Amino acid sequence: MQVVVRQELLKEFTHRVFTASGVPDKDAETAADVLLASDLRGIDSHGVARLHFYVEKICSGQINPQAEIRIVRETASTALVDGGKGLGLVVGPKANRIAMEKAEACGSGWVTVRNSSHYGIAGYYPLQALGKDLIGWSMTNASALVTPIGGAQRMLGTNPIAIAFPGKEEPPIVIDMATSAVAFGKIEIAMREGNSISSGWGMDKNGRSTRDPEEVADGGILLPLGSTPDQSGHKGTCLAVMVDMLTAVLSGANWGPYVTPFVSKNPPPEKQVGKGTGHFFGALQIEGFMDSEQFKKEVDQWIRTMRKTKSAEDSDGVHIPGDPERRCEEKRRAEGIPLLPQVIENLKLVSSRTGIPVPWK
Amino acid sequence: MQVVVRQELLKEFTHRVFTASGVPDKDAETAADVLLASDLRGIDSHGVARLHFYVEKICSGQINPQAEIRIVRETASTALVDGGKGLGLVVGPKANRIAMEKAEACGSGWVTVRNSSHYGIAGYYPLQALGKDLIGWSMTNASALVTPIGGAQRMLGTNPIAIAFPGKEEPPIVIDMATSAVAFGKIEIAMREGNSISSGWGMDKNGRSTRDPEEVADGGILLPLGSTPDQSGHKGTCLAVMVDMLTAVLSGANWGPYVTPFVSKNPPPEKQVGKGTGHFFGALQIEGFMDSEQFKKEVDQWIRTMRKTKSAEDSDGVHIPGDPERRCEEKRRAEGIPLLPQVIENLKLVSSRTGIPVPWK
Repeated sequence: MQVVVRQELLKEFTHRVFTASGVPDKDAETAADVLLASDLRGIDSHGVARLHFYVEKICSGQINPQAEIRIVRETASTALVDGGKGLGLVVGPKANRIAMEKAEACGSGWVTVRNSSHYGIAGYYPLQALGKDLIGWSMTNASALVTPIGGAQRMLGTNPIAIAFPGKEEPPIVIDMATSAVAFGKIEIAMREGNSISSGWGMDKNGRSTRDPEEVADGGILLPLGSTPDQSGHKGTCLAVMVDMLTAVLSGANWGPYVTPFVSKNPPPEKQVGKGTGHFFGALQIEGFMDSEQFKKEVDQWIRTMRKTKSAEDSDGVHIPGDPERRCEEKRRAEGIPLLPQVIENLKLVSSRTGIPVPWK
Repeated sequence: MQVVVRQELLKEFTHRVFTASGVPDKDAETAADVLLASDLRGIDSHGVARLHFYVEKICSGQINPQAEIRIVRETASTALVDGGKGLGLVVGPKANRIAMEKAEACGSGWVTVRNSSHYGIAGYYPLQALGKDLIGWSMTNASALVTPIGGAQRMLGTNPIAIAFPGKEEPPIVIDMATSAVAFGKIEIAMREGNSISSGWGMDKNGRSTRDPEEVADGGILLPLGSTPDQSGHKGTCLAVMVDMLTAVLSGANWGPYVTPFVSKNPPPEKQVGKGTGHFFGALQIEGFMDSEQFKKEVDQWIRTMRKTKSAEDSDGVHIPGDPERRCEEKRRAEGIPLLPQVIENLKLVSSRTGIPVPWK
């Protein structure tokens, strides 16, 4: 069964599911917006495919749908936010807004967050900053799946980094990248399609390099960007470390191997070293450095120059970060969002649990 | 001929060479401090091995040793600095100081810099922030040596990122990484030692993958971190793009393929799109988020946890970022800095040009 749903309908469904789960209406709308951004941009693993996890965690009391999200400490340009065990899809946008407001007031804003949960795609947050002439950043830690290079143990999350820069006539540059060689979604895709994975992506549970995605999923380990000591896997490790420091050690969230799994079936860590999951948001006011119109024109020139790069053999040329996701979004806004059979089943379960009818016939 | 020089003597020599070249005394001292940090930490390519380049560029008028370094625009937490065609080793520390002062005043400070030149190792700058209970960041762009993934043309610099986090009893975590698979220094080392390089490091001038370091050096191309499309070379590209945006597009410096080469023998680009080389500095006040003592204790716990990671086969275990450089610094502070024959020859030339005697017998 192949189902394609118009994004408005899928968003309305998601919004109503969150409301029915006890999330206040405005927050439920925001949460739906974050999830749909992922489906629109083609990051199918992080969109409505996860709705049932959020609902489950609300029902089981692991997530408080009406959490008080408060600033614990702040300066003119920084803040520590406690998410009150809330929904990451609500905590994230609120903390991001604080960062953007600070940037508008004093040039930049930086917010670290503890006591949150999964916040959707990292790229959602800098996209909010684009329209305000801000350069937005976001990072989050996540439950441990990745080994530091030289090791053979799940010690770090896929800890993504996102940042975006607005163009004037050209579309924005949007960077959103896990700091592991690949995100876990790529392992899942390979399993679904019965393909082997590339070497350098993962290890089995005994720490042996493997090209079998099942072996990675079954208690195995992802490798950091760079994959091997020879190819500078220590650099991918460094990036994951940076994210863990800024999102969790600086906020008082759980870090490294102590982050509670959100979607994986792994047992939760035996101890907690902090509160919930950690995020980090930043915003830089472009006008604080130069005229924002001039900046955007220069970004246009930069993009046009890079597009002219001589192609490598067997390559379709150089892409600007954000190109594939934007093309997907254009297509899906026009044609609807295709849902995989597994996702359809999950949404049916969500529907029967909440009483909200599924958005297809 | 093997020469080992005590670091104080090498620093004094460097300081005097800069003074003799027209750099004001205080600035010359700073510049020597930056170069020596590199030699102490074992990044031999970026230390006194480059002194002759700086002197040459001052003598030829490409660098103004007494440049006026000024803030062009600022907010409470951000600034655009024009380096006045100055010495990067002086412009960098001044701009970094502005970022740190802003962080002490309002929680964070972010400074983008144009019209500068090579600023030494990126890691020098966050090290300055450590003692002030700040989290320091630094990035710089550099002349194009790296192709964006999918391409086969030098379009981006090795564009490093550095950031450091203080521990309490444990030494700090110090990240300093080029965003290419390897820095050009690794190609030079392979040439000097007659070794082949790993696949995934570079291409020859025709865009073909090569393991011959001479072919990379002779007009060839470095690959971004990740190395191939399969191993997420687009992520290394994204990091280099981020650095180019923050250091150069945001400051009005030259970006991408338009950055003037500093040490390479490549001809300068035909056109300029901005002024000089660009840097970006940041500082976050730890106390703005949490008690800095508590933060440092948590960093200690984090480090101790990571050190216990199960080792991969054929590995000496997991290193904390900054470990190898710190160990090198301890050794070289005690035993002196070994100079390679080529560096000795270069320093002799500098000596005869400036009249400052070499610091060895």
